Amino acid sequence: MTSCSKQKRETLPVLNQPFDKGLVQVFTGNGRGKTSAAMGTVLRAVGHGLRVYIAFFMKGSYPYGEQDTLTRFPDVTIARFGHESFVDPRHVKEEEKEEARRALSAARQAMLSDKYDLIILDEVNVATAWKLIDLEELLQLVREKPADVELILTGRYADAKLIELADLVTEMLEIKHPYRKGIKARPGIEY
Amino acid sequence: MTSCSKQKRETLPVLNQPFDKGLVQVFTGNGRGKTSAAMGTVLRAVGHGLRVYIAFFMKGSYPYGEQDTLTRFPDVTIARFGHESFVDPRHVKEEEKEEARRALSAARQAMLSDKYDLIILDEVNVATAWKLIDLEELLQLVREKPADVELILTGRYADAKLIELADLVTEMLEIKHPYRKGIKARPGIEY
Repeated sequence: MTSCSKQKRETLPVLNQPFDKGLVQVFTGNGRGKTSAAMGTVLRAVGHGLRVYIAFFMKGSYPYGEQDTLTRFPDVTIARFGHESFVDPRHVKEEEKEEARRALSAARQAMLSDKYDLIILDEVNVATAWKLIDLEELLQLVREKPADVELILTGRYADAKLIELADLVTEMLEIKHPYRKGIKARPGIEY
Repeated sequence: MTSCSKQKRETLPVLNQPFDKGLVQVFTGNGRGKTSAAMGTVLRAVGHGLRVYIAFFMKGSYPYGEQDTLTRFPDVTIARFGHESFVDPRHVKEEEKEEARRALSAARQAMLSDKYDLIILDEVNVATAWKLIDLEELLQLVREKPADVELILTGRYADAKLIELADLVTEMLEIKHPYRKGIKARPGIEY
């Protein structure tokens, strides 16, 4: 693998931009592939020797296959936040808010640490829409992004103000879904 | 890692479906994240001990970061097809068609081999739209999918007949893109 310092002087291979032009990317929408697209970007980044920090919001200690796999890469740091039970947006608990705030704070610290080239805030849009964290605090984090860091924010319900701040926004649109064919979704896997 | 045979008797973690209900998934649209979402799904699958075969259509020997990273997983088999130069849809060369046909044939063979749980045909939709391969041959491959195999097809321009056959279709929609801000796309990275 090429050393990271060498890469740093060249381009950011995630989008092949110069390293001083790290972008803010958002994956949102009701379709599949938001977290998966972020994780696929991690694969690409790791292949180029980049250092990655991923904060999983609201996912607790659920043993997602991709998290297990990611821990095999020494250049990838994973932080999981949230409880094992699923958040009910109508009855958000104080400890759920605390976990989400911890996630945001940890992601911010990682982003400013100069230790990472790519920062992913997975499901942060849902945490924001459900008021686990304050929208203004999230926007503030985005505004503080160092020029040489790439930032990816995933989850449904991305706020219009975040979209305004972001450089690259993709909506995953559900065109056809097997639930319609009677295959049931399971909590933690598909929502 | 859990052994594959054990997993096989349980569920397919890609979508947590029973293994005899492997789905046909399509990622299409003009936005980012189609290949990345497929690669993120590979991470999840590998984390559950699944065996993966990926056919990269039309990508030649371009050293994509994610391909380098994927070769680190013993359960992932990668086959790259196409030439190093990019296909001009107005002037498709006979050797480009041959490469795409080889890709389709190799993917079909892998799908029917009983050696893989997840098969990815990356950029196959573009290859079909540009007539490198015959739509009917692609549809035939999809119809032949064994029940316990998951199939993912990526690329812009997914044909309506493929969408009709598929179980789960997601359109990546470009909401905002940095090209608009004067950052230039490079061939092989963003198209």
